[in-house]
Amino acid sequence: MLILMEAGATAEQMRAVLETLESAGVRAVVQDGAEALNILAPHASKALKPDRLETMGGVRKVVPITSPFKLASSDSAPGRTVVEVRGVKIGGPDLALAAGPCGVESREQLFATARYVAEQGVKLLRAGAFKPRTSPYSFQGLGLEGLQLLEEARAEFDLGIVTEATEIETFDEVERSADLIQIGARNMQNFALLKRAGRSERPVLLKRGPAATLEEWLYAAEYVLSEGNRNVILCERGIRTWSDHARNTLDVSVVPAAKALTHLPVMVDPSHATGRRDLVIPCARAAVAVGADGLLVETHCHPEKALSDGPQALLPSDFIHLVDQCRAIHVVLKKAEQSSGFAF
Amino acid sequence: MLILMEAGATAEQMRAVLETLESAGVRAVVQDGAEALNILAPHASKALKPDRLETMGGVRKVVPITSPFKLASSDSAPGRTVVEVRGVKIGGPDLALAAGPCGVESREQLFATARYVAEQGVKLLRAGAFKPRTSPYSFQGLGLEGLQLLEEARAEFDLGIVTEATEIETFDEVERSADLIQIGARNMQNFALLKRAGRSERPVLLKRGPAATLEEWLYAAEYVLSEGNRNVILCERGIRTWSDHARNTLDVSVVPAAKALTHLPVMVDPSHATGRRDLVIPCARAAVAVGADGLLVETHCHPEKALSDGPQALLPSDFIHLVDQCRAIHVVLKKAEQSSGFAF
Amino acid sequence: MLILMEAGATAEQMRAVLETLESAGVRAVVQDGAEALNILAPHASKALKPDRLETMGGVRKVVPITSPFKLASSDSAPGRTVVEVRGVKIGGPDLALAAGPCGVESREQLFATARYVAEQGVKLLRAGAFKPRTSPYSFQGLGLEGLQLLEEARAEFDLGIVTEATEIETFDEVERSADLIQIGARNMQNFALLKRAGRSERPVLLKRGPAATLEEWLYAAEYVLSEGNRNVILCERGIRTWSDHARNTLDVSVVPAAKALTHLPVMVDPSHATGRRDLVIPCARAAVAVGADGLLVETHCHPEKALSDGPQALLPSDFIHLVDQCRAIHVVLKKAEQSSGFAF
Amino acid sequence: MLILMEAGATAEQMRAVLETLESAGVRAVVQDGAEALNILAPHASKALKPDRLETMGGVRKVVPITSPFKLASSDSAPGRTVVEVRGVKIGGPDLALAAGPCGVESREQLFATARYVAEQGVKLLRAGAFKPRTSPYSFQGLGLEGLQLLEEARAEFDLGIVTEATEIETFDEVERSADLIQIGARNMQNFALLKRAGRSERPVLLKRGPAATLEEWLYAAEYVLSEGNRNVILCERGIRTWSDHARNTLDVSVVPAAKALTHLPVMVDPSHATGRRDLVIPCARAAVAVGADGLLVETHCHPEKALSDGPQALLPSDFIHLVDQCRAIHVVLKKAEQSSGFAF
Repeated sequence: MLILMEAGATAEQMRAVLETLESAGVRAVVQDGAEALNILAPHASKALKPDRLETMGGVRKVVPITSPFKLASSDSAPGRTVVEVRGVKIGGPDLALAAGPCGVESREQLFATARYVAEQGVKLLRAGAFKPRTSPYSFQGLGLEGLQLLEEARAEFDLGIVTEATEIETFDEVERSADLIQIGARNMQNFALLKRAGRSERPVLLKRGPAATLEEWLYAAEYVLSEGNRNVILCERGIRTWSDHARNTLDVSVVPAAKALTHLPVMVDPSHATGRRDLVIPCARAAVAVGADGLLVETHCHPEKALSDGPQALLPSDFIHLVDQCRAIHVVLKKAEQSSGFAF
Repeated sequence: MLILMEAGATAEQMRAVLETLESAGVRAVVQDGAEALNILAPHASKALKPDRLETMGGVRKVVPITSPFKLASSDSAPGRTVVEVRGVKIGGPDLALAAGPCGVESREQLFATARYVAEQGVKLLRAGAFKPRTSPYSFQGLGLEGLQLLEEARAEFDLGIVTEATEIETFDEVERSADLIQIGARNMQNFALLKRAGRSERPVLLKRGPAATLEEWLYAAEYVLSEGNRNVILCERGIRTWSDHARNTLDVSVVPAAKALTHLPVMVDPSHATGRRDLVIPCARAAVAVGADGLLVETHCHPEKALSDGPQALLPSDFIHLVDQCRAIHVVLKKAEQSSGFAF
Repeated sequence: MLILMEAGATAEQMRAVLETLESAGVRAVVQDGAEALNILAPHASKALKPDRLETMGGVRKVVPITSPFKLASSDSAPGRTVVEVRGVKIGGPDLALAAGPCGVESREQLFATARYVAEQGVKLLRAGAFKPRTSPYSFQGLGLEGLQLLEEARAEFDLGIVTEATEIETFDEVERSADLIQIGARNMQNFALLKRAGRSERPVLLKRGPAATLEEWLYAAEYVLSEGNRNVILCERGIRTWSDHARNTLDVSVVPAAKALTHLPVMVDPSHATGRRDLVIPCARAAVAVGADGLLVETHCHPEKALSDGPQALLPSDFIHLVDQCRAIHVVLKKAEQSSGFAF
Repeated sequence: MLILMEAGATAEQMRAVLETLESAGVRAVVQDGAEALNILAPHASKALKPDRLETMGGVRKVVPITSPFKLASSDSAPGRTVVEVRGVKIGGPDLALAAGPCGVESREQLFATARYVAEQGVKLLRAGAFKPRTSPYSFQGLGLEGLQLLEEARAEFDLGIVTEATEIETFDEVERSADLIQIGARNMQNFALLKRAGRSERPVLLKRGPAATLEEWLYAAEYVLSEGNRNVILCERGIRTWSDHARNTLDVSVVPAAKALTHLPVMVDPSHATGRRDLVIPCARAAVAVGADGLLVETHCHPEKALSDGPQALLPSDFIHLVDQCRAIHVVLKKAEQSSGFAF
């Protein structure tokens, strides 16, 4: 909310407005506007009606659009957004799990992995057909053949498909095969790709860039939303820091911080966030405990043979532990929400 | 474990040793030693007996001390260390909680806070009498008067005292009053202070420096341990990164990563790790879920009047929620440990 | 250079090879290969001939291609690559300067700026027609109209054009108008775009991503090179760190570090690296002093009216100082190269 | 400068003050004060006299102390501070060079190094007698014997001594032997040590902590200054980032940024900033070019035998190149200052 003051407003009038905002629990900042001083109160619209302020002395006008994230902002929606992916509701009361290998490598590998994923009651299968790789000489994915295998796995195991679109050239094909289109961390500011995703009818999972602030991440979501696609899920996957015991640093606090600013669901990928198998389960538990709406997890029937990211893929037996532990923690949160009256 | 090869050992002999290590699940690195090639296998001593390797062809000697953290290393102790602080066991099956205001400000403030902390069944009171402050013009703590008040609070509420030693000059006084001596993040590489703490009979809580790698943190612990004090607790409190939605970035994955390398207990301080009241409870839950042995939490009877770190101190009502939620998550972990047979 | 040892090679034979490498000033690492131990010596091929090593005891084969950056690596070219852009040689003995506004805004703005840029003897005009912007609501550039204006400025002031390609959709148009195609920092790992640039006949300026390691940057260059385009210029533009006095942290040491690994020219953009006008000239001097082959500088005839990045654009008068000071420092380096016999 | 407005001041009156500040090139921020709105203009006192503002409508009072760094701030001194160390003026027109080994290891090593340092006309010898080391098992310096050797080197070669004080216990001894007392990066927020240094009559070289912002660094300087010691030199030595081609990231832009905020001299240590011998000379040139008042460089008569930091110590022959090149660049800067009329 932006409160435009009159040019002749007194400082006492301004203080009265500031006190009104403060007593409603709203943070406010005085700004030097073009014609007069203004007051910016980023998240005031839920706590205060504009007419309460517009009738105060010295106030010229109250502008309701307050967030630079016009569509991603909490202010812009009546409640939290729930994105539905082939029947799975992400952002609602249930914990959403998506699991599978880093990349589709063969029918045997994909089906063997999909089978034990589905047996755990997980409804979403994640695997890349197109793989963005740091080196041009690394395995780049099976491409269209991988998409075909994903469709077969969907039919066979009744699983929704989460797979990455890496470029506009092959976006149409990914769109046809995917139930949830992933935009990878390295493409978080590939604005042409974001706009294309914004014109898709499929929901979009937007990973946080390895060096993106929360604000930049929400701006990237805004690119998708502003093209018309309102089904955007955010996904934290670890950030780049100097801390060197893991591949990335899982930034757990960004989950509640994001939920304070946006109505969009927030998932966490503990596999890329750590890059070490022995850290994945503990960090998955932490992600659920901090309030994530779901997890995106790498698991592989034979991690030692994986063509990419083997060291971070969970073994089948570990995956079962992860699912059990995360669900149990999620139950704790749901009970705490009920008894405390707060939504996490 | 360091495997010294003979100067004339063949490459095939070396590969045989490497394969033995690998089949035992041990990572190994070939090094160019002074007289011959050596093999460094940092955590081999639990998986393999030295004589299994010493009888292999080409092996000259197996040196059991393998870690640069001779005393902090997992290799150096038969199991996990449990540090006892006035009857509270840290590092064992129970979740250890320490809570209180950032600094001792007055008897009223300290007692009011200690009262509701104790009422939650928390047994440790944290508060600083000596405060390291970025600016020389900020409140520096009540000093000796603060220690006196802490002793009174201990007597009144039956709470163990956790308080910071900031310098050698006043270490003796802090030592007399404290049940657990805290070494702050900014002093993590104040080696003179570490050595003094190493000669204390009190247990030591060693906070991770804001830019310290896991390895540097363990070296700092080694400074304390090598002076004779074996009761060291590590405490993660957030690291400095460019991620700007919170004061620091809570590095949850360092907890299981540290536990893989050291036998020492690991606690987490979600208050300094976030600096924002609304993020403290979610991050406290994440810390417990990731496997922390305990929490160090800031709470204040009247945060809005706090002389330091008010924005991150929990309100009394919030504190009750934190305790309830964290204990419930800890129960989930204990059950999972029992059913999976692993210790987190 | 990869030295494959025989399976039965003795450790003494390995040490003899290692010592030969060391005495030639080459760093080497022992690796555990598929059949035997190998020695990786990344930059040995200039210091040592393969046959010198192949005749040594225990050596099975010497493989000359040693770098994961097959084409970007210093090993892969006989000397430093010089990229020619409309007559300007980048990577040779002269300091290359490219300057202009962040974005093309109007003919008046572009021509006024181009005029004083050309008057300083600068031969390359930089300005974006397509602007990647964090927010979808920010000025996104004039697009095709901007390219048209750039062509007119080239004709009017005899300047080569440096402008950014942000997506494949409009790549052809940018390619037609540009003398040097810029790939922006946020697109450094937009692999589809890199491959398209690799099929262009225009030289490419590849900015370092804000969180890219030197290795990742060279891999990105490898994507361009491996498609056939050998005219790649690297450009450091500041990295994202927690250091908050400037918009980014200019990583000067990456310039000599890159030049040790690759034969490609390296330029520096001190404007994005700092984001503060008062830091641009000092950092431009530092970039030249550290050994950069050229600079990419933002200057604007009226920075206070700029539609993007005004705070970092140099005033015309400042720009003259920058050019004078940087050229004078470059003269010092050239003299030092001659007297020391080293190339920086 | 803090401009306190009257409670009844109109917004137009405030804008008039803001415009006056702006036209004088001063940045200003509106704040919500206890009784009325205030205007904070951090560096206004050189550009504007208080009475110019105090006579304006709506202004109640102008408070001259504007910086949280009361003594370190540019506002607090009439010009730049020049610190004299045994006849060497640091912060004035000449480039100050201090060089020597990381640690004192023996008379032979120290004298051999001091000899060629002195032969280059360098007047300050740097070497540690007390070494803060990450591991308790690393070489910790010769201690008092090292100080004795430094005194002998001073007498023999007529060099001022720069050496580190690591703790209060041995501060008196270091103080007696040193001409310039170094506070190391890891002790930048060891406040007890800073206060002790503030009570010394020797000048102090304060290294920037590896994760310290510019503001925290200046607060640390303020600890020394506020105890009475006004002879403080700042020294940038690289910061901790994820950029992994060098040991630290040399933050060159902090030099001009610091000089904009403080009157204290700023030196640079390119040796710790890079940790790689081949990067030291380029980064030393960059440091001089960016405007550093001097350099602190590690050089060793036999780096391959150094007990600490050998890989970053310059060979004697390299050291001569460094001195020549840096002096030549400094001459360029001095000429540019004269012709432009600005001080860098």
